[in-house]
Amino acid sequence: MSDATTRTKGLEGVVAGSSSISLVEGAEGRLSYRGYRIQDLAANSSFEEVLYLLIYGELPTASQLGQIEMTLRERRALPDAATSVLRVLPKGDKQEPIDVLRTVVSSLALVDPDVDNTERDAVIDKALTLAARMPTIVAAYARLRESKEPIAPNNDLGHAANLLYMLRGEVPPEEDAKALNTYFVLAAEHSFNASTFTAKIVTSTLSDYYSAIVGAICSLKGVSHGGANQKAMEMMLEVGDVNNVEPFIDHALATKRRLMGMGHRIYKTYDPRAAQLNEQARIVAERGGNTKWYDIAQRIDNISHTHPYFAERKIYPNVEFYSAPLLYTLGFKPDMMPALFACSRISGWSAHILEQLQDNRIIRPNAEYIGPAIRDYTPLEDRR
Amino acid sequence: MSDATTRTKGLEGVVAGSSSISLVEGAEGRLSYRGYRIQDLAANSSFEEVLYLLIYGELPTASQLGQIEMTLRERRALPDAATSVLRVLPKGDKQEPIDVLRTVVSSLALVDPDVDNTERDAVIDKALTLAARMPTIVAAYARLRESKEPIAPNNDLGHAANLLYMLRGEVPPEEDAKALNTYFVLAAEHSFNASTFTAKIVTSTLSDYYSAIVGAICSLKGVSHGGANQKAMEMMLEVGDVNNVEPFIDHALATKRRLMGMGHRIYKTYDPRAAQLNEQARIVAERGGNTKWYDIAQRIDNISHTHPYFAERKIYPNVEFYSAPLLYTLGFKPDMMPALFACSRISGWSAHILEQLQDNRIIRPNAEYIGPAIRDYTPLEDRR
Repeated sequence: MSDATTRTKGLEGVVAGSSSISLVEGAEGRLSYRGYRIQDLAANSSFEEVLYLLIYGELPTASQLGQIEMTLRERRALPDAATSVLRVLPKGDKQEPIDVLRTVVSSLALVDPDVDNTERDAVIDKALTLAARMPTIVAAYARLRESKEPIAPNNDLGHAANLLYMLRGEVPPEEDAKALNTYFVLAAEHSFNASTFTAKIVTSTLSDYYSAIVGAICSLKGVSHGGANQKAMEMMLEVGDVNNVEPFIDHALATKRRLMGMGHRIYKTYDPRAAQLNEQARIVAERGGNTKWYDIAQRIDNISHTHPYFAERKIYPNVEFYSAPLLYTLGFKPDMMPALFACSRISGWSAHILEQLQDNRIIRPNAEYIGPAIRDYTPLEDRR
Repeated sequence: MSDATTRTKGLEGVVAGSSSISLVEGAEGRLSYRGYRIQDLAANSSFEEVLYLLIYGELPTASQLGQIEMTLRERRALPDAATSVLRVLPKGDKQEPIDVLRTVVSSLALVDPDVDNTERDAVIDKALTLAARMPTIVAAYARLRESKEPIAPNNDLGHAANLLYMLRGEVPPEEDAKALNTYFVLAAEHSFNASTFTAKIVTSTLSDYYSAIVGAICSLKGVSHGGANQKAMEMMLEVGDVNNVEPFIDHALATKRRLMGMGHRIYKTYDPRAAQLNEQARIVAERGGNTKWYDIAQRIDNISHTHPYFAERKIYPNVEFYSAPLLYTLGFKPDMMPALFACSRISGWSAHILEQLQDNRIIRPNAEYIGPAIRDYTPLEDRR
């Protein structure tokens, strides 16, 4: 393999374009959206406000915030065609919610009479509609797979609280809604990650908005990306008790087993999102009177800061790590977690789709050919 | 914008990895799959043989070819769940077949009990099954949208002939089957194009095979990529008569209207696939006794070789250009064409997915941040 290829494997370090949406400062462990520190947004903003910020570039005024909140509330219900697809899809423990979400989002293109419109206002309109509908799809599937009827959205509730309502059938405690909102704020955007870059490539061919989001969901599902929260929770369930943490880690290191939700290509210090999620995971666990999963996560986190193996490699908990006990304690099964990630990240994807369309060129890299030299065709009868 | 960004816009000229699957020599107008010239494959190979070649790296022996042909025939029928999705999806002139294909392929993940298996043999097995099923989805939708019942696959026929059979309800003439087969061979693979690169990124996150193919379909749909055959045909329908070609082109040049199916980022000479498709388009047109669309395409092609505007810019017909009259004359509506492209390109996508898995690293480029500097959060009540 040539030096050129080695250098760009996984496109690491390759600048694939410019962006004004978020700044990831990996060495310093800092993240900001449109110039605002993630800590400030996590403490102060609703998901609706962050969606506005990412799409429009500025924080909304009170009237703009009221408008986007109302728009999202009005658009939560699913069209009949999407509900029909949800009902005919196979449902069970083996059918992953993110695969259902991908399929139903894809089907929504078929009920949009203006599907291929890529003008800015049209794309924003589609983005708001889909951001409103995705939690409805996720909650409906969570209930349908347990043979329960879906619950209609509650328009008195904000985005995060309503998702918990559609899942549980009752208005959630304030702490739960705040915790889910904080997760949605923290997971909303992270520059040119694999799913966002997928959305950019799809958009670069002048394909439509739904295709870009479906493509992003396809990438998000991977366990090296948005599928990691599920794997982190499954790992914590396997640990099972806070007293098992040390032997579990020792065994993992001895058998070279990868610990899920730990380490990040970009962050070589503490993931700035993990600290915020840690706090919310603790609050939700304490409110519910069950800190078991939070305690396991906390113990693993502590070890990563003291054990030389992790310190030498700069492997610390990432955003998926604390989102696992947080979401699990809120009532989401592990396999729901990648789909919840998508419900948040649609905001960042949509901002990047709009940015790509502003100054578009098809994304089409080169390959270094390492295959056979040109050879003559062998007729079938001469092949051995 | 910095030099670094300008250089890599659209990743042009960036080597994103190595590949042994195909070699595109743009300056020379040459294309080969696994070392075999595209002209030899177009003249001699079935789609089934090319699928084998792309996946396994060598031409099949007679026994291997017989095996893959049998496997594809046995797997053409759709699972009930996929048929149910097809039946509940909205159908009409406005519902694009490629959107339906994307949705139904996505739903097939839900009936695969081994969906997340990315071991080589499992992925090959999934690839053969999906390659067999995609034409069944496309033909079924073509009939359902016209309120006709789908036609079951005919296992006496090869891959291309059977698709025409499922569309028309009768065994096609040999010339028609050969023409569609040639199209399937020529459109099967083209290195790191946008849809293939999308499949690679999705795979790089360790997402599943279906997600990689769905993501590729999302990119293929774009009019700067696989959607171009449809746009080329719509342009030829607008021209309407061979005598309108000159005034149409003069008007297009005067109004800076883009001609569809013309020009290619890589080929700066005649696209080697266009010549092969030209011949097949002529044969099919002459057999059917209607050369109208072929004649229009031929006239545009001729002008591109004599008119200084095109010669200076090296803009010649590409693979989409002659596939348009070829597929239209075979009975496919323009909006079916991107979905047919997918039925062929799944072979190249699958080969690249396997290659990515062999030496995987998550594909995650960097962005140059050009947004606002870090700023303090303004409380809602202070925003104007």
